[in-house]
Amino acid sequence: MGILVVGSAALDSVQTPHGKVKEALGGSAVYFAVSARFFTSIKLVAVVGEDFPQEHVNFLKRKNIDIEGLEIVGGETFRWKGRYTGDMNTAHTLSTCLNVFEKFHPKLPENYRESKYIFLANIDPGLQLEVLKQVKNPKLVASDTMNLWISLVPGVLKKTLKHVDMLIINDAEIKQFSGEDNIVRASRKVLQFGPKAVVVKRGEFGSMMFTGNSIFSVPAYPLDRVVDPTGAGDTFAGGLMGYLSKTDNIKEGNIRKAIIYGTVMASFNVQDFSLDRMKKLTVKEINNRFNEISKLTSF
Amino acid sequence: MGILVVGSAALDSVQTPHGKVKEALGGSAVYFAVSARFFTSIKLVAVVGEDFPQEHVNFLKRKNIDIEGLEIVGGETFRWKGRYTGDMNTAHTLSTCLNVFEKFHPKLPENYRESKYIFLANIDPGLQLEVLKQVKNPKLVASDTMNLWISLVPGVLKKTLKHVDMLIINDAEIKQFSGEDNIVRASRKVLQFGPKAVVVKRGEFGSMMFTGNSIFSVPAYPLDRVVDPTGAGDTFAGGLMGYLSKTDNIKEGNIRKAIIYGTVMASFNVQDFSLDRMKKLTVKEINNRFNEISKLTSF
Repeated sequence: MGILVVGSAALDSVQTPHGKVKEALGGSAVYFAVSARFFTSIKLVAVVGEDFPQEHVNFLKRKNIDIEGLEIVGGETFRWKGRYTGDMNTAHTLSTCLNVFEKFHPKLPENYRESKYIFLANIDPGLQLEVLKQVKNPKLVASDTMNLWISLVPGVLKKTLKHVDMLIINDAEIKQFSGEDNIVRASRKVLQFGPKAVVVKRGEFGSMMFTGNSIFSVPAYPLDRVVDPTGAGDTFAGGLMGYLSKTDNIKEGNIRKAIIYGTVMASFNVQDFSLDRMKKLTVKEINNRFNEISKLTSF
Repeated sequence: MGILVVGSAALDSVQTPHGKVKEALGGSAVYFAVSARFFTSIKLVAVVGEDFPQEHVNFLKRKNIDIEGLEIVGGETFRWKGRYTGDMNTAHTLSTCLNVFEKFHPKLPENYRESKYIFLANIDPGLQLEVLKQVKNPKLVASDTMNLWISLVPGVLKKTLKHVDMLIINDAEIKQFSGEDNIVRASRKVLQFGPKAVVVKRGEFGSMMFTGNSIFSVPAYPLDRVVDPTGAGDTFAGGLMGYLSKTDNIKEGNIRKAIIYGTVMASFNVQDFSLDRMKKLTVKEINNRFNEISKLTSF
């Protein structure tokens, strides 16, 4: 089936108690694609500046990610600087430079428009909507967002959500977006904006899916060492959407399995900086950890 | 089989966003007993002052809780005042008056000493140890503790833990006790103090059990309205120990089921102030919610 993903490609500088990296490969669409490509084929839409290292382009190509939709324009690539401390549950943003994203308007290559599985990774919801207008007849549209857009353009976000089947969002963000400090009430409210399912990411506490008539809850995979949480949410979404696209089945039982694959992918990603762990990851390791989560949660 | 529980009986004054109560029935041993008695018979050891209302004594008797070990002495009953705000995950203690607990030394009635299942609810670990010295040949000893004892008497706590099979503790406390901010590492360290299992309570994020070679993780039951979290940990322990005692099976698979019963009992308890929800609770409601948690977590 394959997935179309639109989002950011970035150069991230990150400090954690375990070390730091400078201008490492990152960005929501990149993390998502590198995770989801273990399951299915990926078409990527993003923009970078001419300063984006060729080695990163080569890496994405080598992983069979279709980058026809990766625009390279004059100017600087999007950059994010952040720091994690203590329990590593919250990113402290030191700086965000949108750079080439400020004037970006995604234009989908013709062969991208027939995509059935769409992931609108975290970018301006206006751009997410522009992408949706260009796709023809999607089977499942999922999206992510962040506190910045919830504060700046809540109206555009709500407009976009009318066309979204599944919102994947973290717990602090859904509380902010809904104005509710209880996650059940918050999800119920956000379901009224349009999505048929809301998946809430809770970091080390796992994730939950809310639909109109069901709740699913799964813990995170327990790790004794989290090196860098950057990209956890996007690799989670990558595993989730990757498995759905691979199996082409969007019934609730299958979405639950997909959430476990998302959990698995996120758990690997946080074990090293940037995409370093994902670069070495094997399908066998993914399936083993899926089985471990089965054992971890069964009673 | 039955359970011997030692802990506090208290009069709690609590404020939450949903209201407040003044000098309501509370205390770790009381919450535990009222929860566990749905599963098995309970022998309670605690102390209260002469000001402890007779209606509370009558209530415990009516629930078939053996209160031969409830000492009534001159002086005032233990009192706690606390407040919960926002996401209700943390209690802000306004005052703690130990009162009659300051000079308490538990003396077990003769027929208490043969108990096979022992729960050392949250009191001074020195008193927990005094109780253990009086029991003859227990099958399972579980204990709880709190930040106060971890700060004041960590040595006594460690000495007590040498005789404990299962420590039931909340996440902030196990991090404080171990000096580790990662829950996997924290539990590994505390297992070295003696217990064969550590059960970590994480409030709205559920609970985890760590043994030397396994991890079990279960989410909380999702509630759209938490009225008063007081006693959640003790009613959790009550469901857990109650089911173990009832089934008289301490294999890991059965302990996992017991943790689900703990989760169920805690989820009911927080739906009203003090023990008000527990007073109305039925076995049918307990079993229904157990099944709901099964559905909530299956994939």
